[in-house]
Amino acid sequence: MRTVSKPERLAYEKVTSGVLQHTTSFFHKRGFNQRLPQILSTITDTLDGDPGSAVLKSESITYLEQRLMLMQSMILHKQILIKNGVEKFFIISPNIRLENPVRRTTGKHLFEFNQVDFEVRGAKMKDIFRVMDAFIISMVNKIIETCPKELELFGRVLKPIKGPFPVYDMDELVKAHGPEWEQKLSEGAKTPFWVTSIPREFYDKADPAHEGKFLNYDLIYNGGFCEALSGGERETDFGIIMSKVRAHNLQEKPYVQAFLKLAEEGLVPSAGGGFGVERLVRYLTGAPHVGDVQMFPRVPGEPVIV
Amino acid sequence: MRTVSKPERLAYEKVTSGVLQHTTSFFHKRGFNQRLPQILSTITDTLDGDPGSAVLKSESITYLEQRLMLMQSMILHKQILIKNGVEKFFIISPNIRLENPVRRTTGKHLFEFNQVDFEVRGAKMKDIFRVMDAFIISMVNKIIETCPKELELFGRVLKPIKGPFPVYDMDELVKAHGPEWEQKLSEGAKTPFWVTSIPREFYDKADPAHEGKFLNYDLIYNGGFCEALSGGERETDFGIIMSKVRAHNLQEKPYVQAFLKLAEEGLVPSAGGGFGVERLVRYLTGAPHVGDVQMFPRVPGEPVIV
Repeated sequence: MRTVSKPERLAYEKVTSGVLQHTTSFFHKRGFNQRLPQILSTITDTLDGDPGSAVLKSESITYLEQRLMLMQSMILHKQILIKNGVEKFFIISPNIRLENPVRRTTGKHLFEFNQVDFEVRGAKMKDIFRVMDAFIISMVNKIIETCPKELELFGRVLKPIKGPFPVYDMDELVKAHGPEWEQKLSEGAKTPFWVTSIPREFYDKADPAHEGKFLNYDLIYNGGFCEALSGGERETDFGIIMSKVRAHNLQEKPYVQAFLKLAEEGLVPSAGGGFGVERLVRYLTGAPHVGDVQMFPRVPGEPVIV
Repeated sequence: MRTVSKPERLAYEKVTSGVLQHTTSFFHKRGFNQRLPQILSTITDTLDGDPGSAVLKSESITYLEQRLMLMQSMILHKQILIKNGVEKFFIISPNIRLENPVRRTTGKHLFEFNQVDFEVRGAKMKDIFRVMDAFIISMVNKIIETCPKELELFGRVLKPIKGPFPVYDMDELVKAHGPEWEQKLSEGAKTPFWVTSIPREFYDKADPAHEGKFLNYDLIYNGGFCEALSGGERETDFGIIMSKVRAHNLQEKPYVQAFLKLAEEGLVPSAGGGFGVERLVRYLTGAPHVGDVQMFPRVPGEPVIV
């Protein structure tokens, strides 16, 4: 069982507060609109059964005869916001993902966490890289400056890092390092790094210039802390979306149907991503488990006290 | 049915963003820690059946054989945080309250909304008044300064206001104006005003200097927009808490039992409150209905689109 002392709990609260303050200030300064999260919706990404996901089930409640699901990801809402004319925005968005308890000890999974979800109309992959490089670099500096006592308590030697962060193609990483590339490279790296062209979501944009490549990306932390952010340019071509939906046999999923309806009416090009707040606090503090940074832990398979 | 045009929707998003930016910056500047919200918990205030509440039911889900409720209010978590040593903090906290659909047309009820919930160790009623007076006054100035086009679109003439806001005793208001005092005075007032000594929550502090009075408060907006904030100094005397719980026959409620357990171990004096973000945006913009300010409306009795 994990143990976190009282001074450590308060120190994690302090660092989390610094992270939220800098996040808000950073994105506002760059002209992002901040919007409120959604918790209940008729539609949310249904991760259960997706390859790579260990979510046991999507949860819903019934209110006035309507079935409302607990938010797993605001991806569909983000596309609607872009379509409705919001140019660039971010959301501090609580996500519920009822993970399989086998994920208790990965150190990086929670069944309730907060994601900073953002999207920029007309943006390209490289625009997102530049925003996030500046964000992570300035965040590290901010925490070094504002939380020296907390870092000392954790025995965490946090050093300023430099960008731009390197960019790798996923196929080449797998070829060079095998399927365990993420953990291996994360442990060896001196700075966070980008990985592009990951075969996954049907709404990620196919690279028109390179057959079989995708304009999507993950940001991976150095220090063995693995995935920081996941995102992509979004596909707007209805034919391509439809063929990917068919290839993965996703036609029956309600959120896919809602997405297809939106795509049929016409999508607006955008790019964006989402990064976990608790994982960022873990990276900054070097916490053994991402649940350690939560005053009220939400670790898969650990009972909830309050 | 309410109709909100596309330019209005974007203008509400812009004002909401300004409200979130100023809220974050205001509370950080005053040394408040910002913390992340909780959505699922074993315990939350169960408003169903409480006098004055029209909540139909508390909703819960089951995850790994544990029943987890959707957050209605973080009041218990706030007390635990204070007890655990967090000095002063605020949370932008999504709350789910499945209201009776009769509240569809009140203009001020939502079944999902966001509350800025805050608490200060050792604070008195007057400390909270001073913080909130400064907050509302500076917020009005900020929106006048940063959102002139949006206010113009809404035909909203927002003027700087002055503090300190007047303070009234609830008994005297009822005596002078009858049970409909809130709507009546809110419509006539030139600035927001405070009402104190409201007979309600068992955890609100009884005034030791005045028998039958309470050290709690509501902040009421001028302009007919009614309740802005609700809060109080917190009772720490176990005997007084217990007698109020018995008087209202609340012993069986799980959240009351959790509260009593906490109180038995010893509570730490504090004061705080919570104000609705969407209601604040409504006040600033003069929106006819609080649901108008939501891009994805959550009005009791109105079907959810997405």
